Amino acid sequence: MTTNATSPGRSRPQRRQPGQDWSSWPTYESAVLGFRDHWYPVLWTEQVGKKPVAVTVLGENIALVREGEEIHALHDRCPHRGVPLSLGRRQFPGTVSCPYHGWTYDLKDGNLCGVLTDGPDSPIKGRVKVRTYPVQQRFGLIWVYIGDGDPHPLNDDLPEELRHNALVIGGRTDIRKGNWRFAAENGFDEGHAKYLHNTALWRLFKVMPAWNKTRVVERGEWLVRVQDEVHWEADMPGLGLWTNKRWWKRMPLPDAPGKAQKINPVIKGLDLPGFVSIRMPGILRVAYPHFIHYEWYVPVDADNVRYVQLMVRFETGARAGLFKVKYLTAVRWLFHGQFTAQDAWMVDVMDAPPEKLYRPDLSLTAWRRKVEQSRPNVQPYKR
Amino acid sequence: MTTNATSPGRSRPQRRQPGQDWSSWPTYESAVLGFRDHWYPVLWTEQVGKKPVAVTVLGENIALVREGEEIHALHDRCPHRGVPLSLGRRQFPGTVSCPYHGWTYDLKDGNLCGVLTDGPDSPIKGRVKVRTYPVQQRFGLIWVYIGDGDPHPLNDDLPEELRHNALVIGGRTDIRKGNWRFAAENGFDEGHAKYLHNTALWRLFKVMPAWNKTRVVERGEWLVRVQDEVHWEADMPGLGLWTNKRWWKRMPLPDAPGKAQKINPVIKGLDLPGFVSIRMPGILRVAYPHFIHYEWYVPVDADNVRYVQLMVRFETGARAGLFKVKYLTAVRWLFHGQFTAQDAWMVDVMDAPPEKLYRPDLSLTAWRRKVEQSRPNVQPYKR
Amino acid sequence: MTTNATSPGRSRPQRRQPGQDWSSWPTYESAVLGFRDHWYPVLWTEQVGKKPVAVTVLGENIALVREGEEIHALHDRCPHRGVPLSLGRRQFPGTVSCPYHGWTYDLKDGNLCGVLTDGPDSPIKGRVKVRTYPVQQRFGLIWVYIGDGDPHPLNDDLPEELRHNALVIGGRTDIRKGNWRFAAENGFDEGHAKYLHNTALWRLFKVMPAWNKTRVVERGEWLVRVQDEVHWEADMPGLGLWTNKRWWKRMPLPDAPGKAQKINPVIKGLDLPGFVSIRMPGILRVAYPHFIHYEWYVPVDADNVRYVQLMVRFETGARAGLFKVKYLTAVRWLFHGQFTAQDAWMVDVMDAPPEKLYRPDLSLTAWRRKVEQSRPNVQPYKR
Repeated sequence: MTTNATSPGRSRPQRRQPGQDWSSWPTYESAVLGFRDHWYPVLWTEQVGKKPVAVTVLGENIALVREGEEIHALHDRCPHRGVPLSLGRRQFPGTVSCPYHGWTYDLKDGNLCGVLTDGPDSPIKGRVKVRTYPVQQRFGLIWVYIGDGDPHPLNDDLPEELRHNALVIGGRTDIRKGNWRFAAENGFDEGHAKYLHNTALWRLFKVMPAWNKTRVVERGEWLVRVQDEVHWEADMPGLGLWTNKRWWKRMPLPDAPGKAQKINPVIKGLDLPGFVSIRMPGILRVAYPHFIHYEWYVPVDADNVRYVQLMVRFETGARAGLFKVKYLTAVRWLFHGQFTAQDAWMVDVMDAPPEKLYRPDLSLTAWRRKVEQSRPNVQPYKR
Repeated sequence: MTTNATSPGRSRPQRRQPGQDWSSWPTYESAVLGFRDHWYPVLWTEQVGKKPVAVTVLGENIALVREGEEIHALHDRCPHRGVPLSLGRRQFPGTVSCPYHGWTYDLKDGNLCGVLTDGPDSPIKGRVKVRTYPVQQRFGLIWVYIGDGDPHPLNDDLPEELRHNALVIGGRTDIRKGNWRFAAENGFDEGHAKYLHNTALWRLFKVMPAWNKTRVVERGEWLVRVQDEVHWEADMPGLGLWTNKRWWKRMPLPDAPGKAQKINPVIKGLDLPGFVSIRMPGILRVAYPHFIHYEWYVPVDADNVRYVQLMVRFETGARAGLFKVKYLTAVRWLFHGQFTAQDAWMVDVMDAPPEKLYRPDLSLTAWRRKVEQSRPNVQPYKR
Repeated sequence: MTTNATSPGRSRPQRRQPGQDWSSWPTYESAVLGFRDHWYPVLWTEQVGKKPVAVTVLGENIALVREGEEIHALHDRCPHRGVPLSLGRRQFPGTVSCPYHGWTYDLKDGNLCGVLTDGPDSPIKGRVKVRTYPVQQRFGLIWVYIGDGDPHPLNDDLPEELRHNALVIGGRTDIRKGNWRFAAENGFDEGHAKYLHNTALWRLFKVMPAWNKTRVVERGEWLVRVQDEVHWEADMPGLGLWTNKRWWKRMPLPDAPGKAQKINPVIKGLDLPGFVSIRMPGILRVAYPHFIHYEWYVPVDADNVRYVQLMVRFETGARAGLFKVKYLTAVRWLFHGQFTAQDAWMVDVMDAPPEKLYRPDLSLTAWRRKVEQSRPNVQPYKR
């Protein structure tokens, strides 16, 4: 497996200047298609109806097929002549049939359990298998496990606070341009929000800081950005005043720098020192006082990433219903729409390495180091 | 990093598992662009009018130019600066002139017979030649010969029964996606019709078998598929009943398995043991009781194939006229349209090798072997 | 730097037959992207308003930014994460800010003079520089200098007669398909006009010659095509009469072959022996009796060229105003539009080498030799 930086027949160039490539983080550099042995969310359960649906996850082509309440995932290629099974027919219960010759696969294990055009005694029956992927449904989403062997529980790949609490969710999934690593870096990037999102409608009535001084701390699976200093305005020498304050904008509640922000004490197990955190295999958590925003960066292929955005509130009953209404009428369009579309714009046009990192980019390098240290099983990539 | 099976500078990998590649049929594997020294049909004669027409056949760019009743084929590239002659003007009879500088070529032999912008004494006149291709017109089609030296008679590349009989033709040509070999294999493929075409309107009132047992026999130039067993329904263990029978569908006439089907005794020289046959350089024949359907798979380039479909009935006079009407109102849309568009869909999405062949695929391997044995002159292909 | 003809790791093939490649003109062959150390026109000054504008010149991505009357050119890539500065904001006077993190660059020298999201004391401030390009405005056009070190005066890259005379200009810029060398060759090409432009509306009332005998002479920076013989008709053996004469067409003024045409004696320094001339780095001059037409062939990338066409008349006052009206109502559409679009069509479909040159192509080979002799600094090109 190779990446962009090497070309066949040439020995690897001498270590170049810092910033010229990502060779300081060789695992990360190679993780063009993300990591095996993890659960990734891919679609909403209601997106898979009677007909099979094709998705690409970590570069793998997968056919999602519904059987009653269950959803199954098969490698989207009939081994006979390479026709996608997602084009297939649901001829018999519990199976999918390739549209070409009626090779019929058991949805549970991928076994070729019948070959319609070769009769009941077809000699090849039972001797061909299509790869299947473990699937789970949770939070209204379909999760698939790209890995070998038995998967670990889905819970292990979920933020702790989502595992046991009653909650209500608003969410949105979009495939956007750019590699998933740019999306993840952009999510945990300390510096950009204060400039890029300056113009976002979502922040129309809330001041954003001018600049911060930041540390990154480790908290279990997560890296957390902690603000040591928050500056609401700055007198830039030779340029002028830089601030996001406007007379009509509300200041966020003051918080004590360097101390743990009490976000939402009713959430079990969430006692965060900071606002924004990230973890493997590419999950961002932004903890607002009354809700939490999550982003999963699900690799599609080298140049496309699926954003799975969830807005979660730990409420039930009428308050949960109220949140649903608020989500559908505002948050979905302002935050999960226009706001994160600004991020997607940058993820699309970004072109690194080479790169020159600056002080706030300690968030990026901490994330890259974290990936290296977790020694993940990188999904192979061939250009 | 490796590319598709071979990459420059690497020795060929060890022989792989059967089905991993087509190395068992090396000639066939290399015949991405088909075969030289054959006549291929490309367009209807009325498609070439006053203006030259560009076509691509076997990867070669050709300009077709009409002069009265005759049609000429020239390499579609002016040797001067590489401008396509199909963009040219008909300045003088019997010639075509490059639109750029008026280099004027004799349509018969491709000789540069005048250079308008260099005067009557142009020194280059007569010293440059554009390649020409032999052309014939037959059945309302333009046939070109891609080969070196004098061509053999067109008759040698035509099915015997078309050479001497009075007949009436309905036809259709389309460029479709996919390599020509997939198209040819799909045509002679024993298994697919019974499942893929299950939903075709063309078969709305006629039952198709559930599965067959088949042999392939050689008959002169042709390979013929012979049914040893024809099963109209099958009880698939663990799945259920598989049949194409419906109360409103008519069963075809019974035929004695293993014996020669008497198709149409009035057709001279056609005493076929079976229904479907194939021959070089890629001609399919499907002999119905009262007419014959032909498909020519004409390579355009590596990823596109021209389907030339003919429906032939050996009639004259009023009966021929009736057939014409039937063709234009029904057959053209149901059979040459929707039915074979299902084939084209598969040819487009097929992705082999690797492949896993099953019992009915003896039709494919027989065809590949036939190609190997005929030691054809493969059209060179550079990726 | 490599070109199409060579591939890495292979030794250059033996010298091939003449016309098979451009190896007789190795500098020219390598000049896919034109020449460094020259001024090229790129846009009209009014095309750059408040928002930065992205252009590609000689394969380099450049952001043009207006500051009052001045226009600045910066390498269109923020060194931080590779985001185009042409997407940036004009946050503070005299600077442009990357839209992502507010890295702010001085327009004059490209210095990173502030980093909005890292506070007034950002350690990286002053330690990063974006490349800037010298810019000049002249004739309503923006000219950029792609080269290293201090540029020579713009005047050195302008036709002499444009430097000191009062003049009025009509002009048009378009990006067209094809490499700039095909555009330049087409411009100075002796033979094509008489056939290709035969059908141009611009020549509807003026006869063009049937063919010429031509020499190319050097006159300072310029190569000039001189007609030794002009033939208005030709009896082409075996073909017929070739002429552009029609009863409604006016003949141009007779001129003495081989002698200097007196074009426009009021133009200082323009005493041309011929009608059409060319010079580095790719400027065509067509001297009509009462005006001069210029074309700059500005390389965009390997496959696109920017045509900057100027029609110049050496008049002032009312006569200049009249010319402006004539330009906008007729010349712009007939000559800078339909006429040169015929050229652009050929530049797009041309496919050389290989090529076979003919007698009038001494204009092309003279131009290629001229490029070799001027030993230009070729802009590097990587496929």
